[in-house]
Amino acid sequence: MLELRLVQGSLLKKVLESIRELVTDANFDCSATGFSLQAMDSSHVALVALLLRSEGFEHYRCDRNLSMGMNLNNVSKMLRCAGNDDIITVKADDGSDTVTFMFESPNQDKIADFEMKLMDIDSEHLGIPDAEYQAIVRMPSSEFARICKDLSSIGDTVIISVTKEGVKFSTAGDIGTANIVCRQNKTVDKPEEATIIEMQEPVSLTFALRYLNSFTKATPLSETVAISLSSDLPVVVEYKIAEMGYIRFYLAPKIEEDDDMKP
Amino acid sequence: MLELRLVQGSLLKKVLESIRELVTDANFDCSATGFSLQAMDSSHVALVALLLRSEGFEHYRCDRNLSMGMNLNNVSKMLRCAGNDDIITVKADDGSDTVTFMFESPNQDKIADFEMKLMDIDSEHLGIPDAEYQAIVRMPSSEFARICKDLSSIGDTVIISVTKEGVKFSTAGDIGTANIVCRQNKTVDKPEEATIIEMQEPVSLTFALRYLNSFTKATPLSETVAISLSSDLPVVVEYKIAEMGYIRFYLAPKIEEDDDMKP
Amino acid sequence: MLELRLVQGSLLKKVLESIRELVTDANFDCSATGFSLQAMDSSHVALVALLLRSEGFEHYRCDRNLSMGMNLNNVSKMLRCAGNDDIITVKADDGSDTVTFMFESPNQDKIADFEMKLMDIDSEHLGIPDAEYQAIVRMPSSEFARICKDLSSIGDTVIISVTKEGVKFSTAGDIGTANIVCRQNKTVDKPEEATIIEMQEPVSLTFALRYLNSFTKATPLSETVAISLSSDLPVVVEYKIAEMGYIRFYLAPKIEEDDDMKP
Repeated sequence: MLELRLVQGSLLKKVLESIRELVTDANFDCSATGFSLQAMDSSHVALVALLLRSEGFEHYRCDRNLSMGMNLNNVSKMLRCAGNDDIITVKADDGSDTVTFMFESPNQDKIADFEMKLMDIDSEHLGIPDAEYQAIVRMPSSEFARICKDLSSIGDTVIISVTKEGVKFSTAGDIGTANIVCRQNKTVDKPEEATIIEMQEPVSLTFALRYLNSFTKATPLSETVAISLSSDLPVVVEYKIAEMGYIRFYLAPKIEEDDDMKP
Repeated sequence: MLELRLVQGSLLKKVLESIRELVTDANFDCSATGFSLQAMDSSHVALVALLLRSEGFEHYRCDRNLSMGMNLNNVSKMLRCAGNDDIITVKADDGSDTVTFMFESPNQDKIADFEMKLMDIDSEHLGIPDAEYQAIVRMPSSEFARICKDLSSIGDTVIISVTKEGVKFSTAGDIGTANIVCRQNKTVDKPEEATIIEMQEPVSLTFALRYLNSFTKATPLSETVAISLSSDLPVVVEYKIAEMGYIRFYLAPKIEEDDDMKP
Repeated sequence: MLELRLVQGSLLKKVLESIRELVTDANFDCSATGFSLQAMDSSHVALVALLLRSEGFEHYRCDRNLSMGMNLNNVSKMLRCAGNDDIITVKADDGSDTVTFMFESPNQDKIADFEMKLMDIDSEHLGIPDAEYQAIVRMPSSEFARICKDLSSIGDTVIISVTKEGVKFSTAGDIGTANIVCRQNKTVDKPEEATIIEMQEPVSLTFALRYLNSFTKATPLSETVAISLSSDLPVVVEYKIAEMGYIRFYLAPKIEEDDDMKP
């Protein structure tokens, strides 16, 4: 039997909104450790990995490992029916082919339960090795989202270049070119407004803005984002979920020769 | 001659927005008692009845009974030109085929008059007998609107079931099922947040969500809604209009056999 | 070399939003005096004239007169990437076929530069003689915008009639007629809320609402608008830009016989 009770239910709503643009169907994996998901986007270019650790739930019971296949748009439709202050409980009986989402209003006057049929989804769980990155940029998540959105009005790809002084985002398109430089800045009033560069060596990589823009749907989950870059690895765009875990997006850099082949 | 002056002009704007989705053309009936309207929706399934009593107007002059046919979208277009703080006066000369809406800004610096041609609309005035209902549910209008909207993302019809403990709204659709229970709750800080059940006997009826959603356009008119249910009668969804009257929506329950015939 | 630094960068964003609906491509003319633009709308019915005086810039360097042809939608795309508190610098080298917009965040942590190719645009600079007008109406710009928008829901043209007492805006359409009268009112708490009529003689002129509505895109630039009317001249709709200049829109009145010929 599975029963996960999350007082801050709005968090689960935000998690769904973060990934449903990228992923259509996915397996949610429940174990004693936590509630997790790993899925490729429909074009098999980007990967998303979610972890919500069991300690973050008010109540967490998972008798045996369970993989629940769901259509994320349908889950999102149901979760959007939860109030922002609602407590959300996810329930599934062993062997059952349904999952139930229960929403309780803070004063307990309104209780809703939504039941959804589970799906069989083929998925291979990729092992993602821990890696050393040439550069890690930590910056306000809203700033990163704004930059990706702004550059998308000019071009399709972005070159992210990191030096000790800062990080530069560049693009070019029919109407012109754009460069946005964010300087390292550790001495701000609020730590979540800092831009911090951890760099082993300078790195400069090209990515499709379309995917980065999808990743930034996770902005409401965290005030900061960490972007880990290495020439020979996919970029990791990580949003920490306070006291619970994270959502991480992986995207392979574009290689020059790819430009003509991938739209 | 007809001359109705309403200081709280925004109320008339809200009334129009409440009904224009449901009804295209309708007769506004004016008598010494008040300003009223009764109309079927275009598919002849739902009925709306509006009453604004003469005492609610700052000035109310209606020399003889008058029935004014209007296209509600056109009335709405004109009323949307009134500021929210404007005083609205409705004027018509005896025998005239036009009606005039006059909008005065609070400081009298801006005065607008909008004249509209009246239409001839055939309509039969249905006598609606007072009835005893098996159950009357009073609840916050915004809560009812939210429930109808949320359930619409799952299914097309809702089963409303009333017991002494509370009212349950249920639906089912391709993606799953949903139940929302609102418990009776009389002891809240603000009376308009209470959910109160007056019940003679339990009742459970099925309705098309599409119409209920249309009814909830009246939500801005009142903080509470009263839903009166009996197995052999149309449901009445009533929004009181403070110190003036009401807007009531009537809808026949769906019968099992109907399910396949009405989309 | 050209280098114009504007601390209040949001102003330049608002200027672009004011004119890009009306004008597609235009030359920005820079001289020692200031930064200006004059352009006809694409249907050659309305004229827009912009002036930003050099004194209004924090730094203004223009070594020789320069005319820079730009697609306003593209400029707008770039300027929308500037934050509302950003400092904007416009730069161009002599003989260069590009212009650069630089955006600096208030704390200098984020610096963006956007480069755009210039275009060759044929344009004839019209001399606009100073004229005496029969009537000048000064009123809150938001009020004027609201009136143009409201009347557009009823008709296509507006008759603006000025007398000593006030200004009347009238229209007629399929669904009816509308008249909005704004009375002269000099004694208001805030001067920007005044409606002031300067009149030599009464005047009544007809204009296409479509263009007036386009002009009101400049509303965010100024709290007041001045409408200058004479029977034999185009109307001038002027929005002052605080301490910098103005944006003026010119539109010829409609003549009765035109009604059938111009859509």
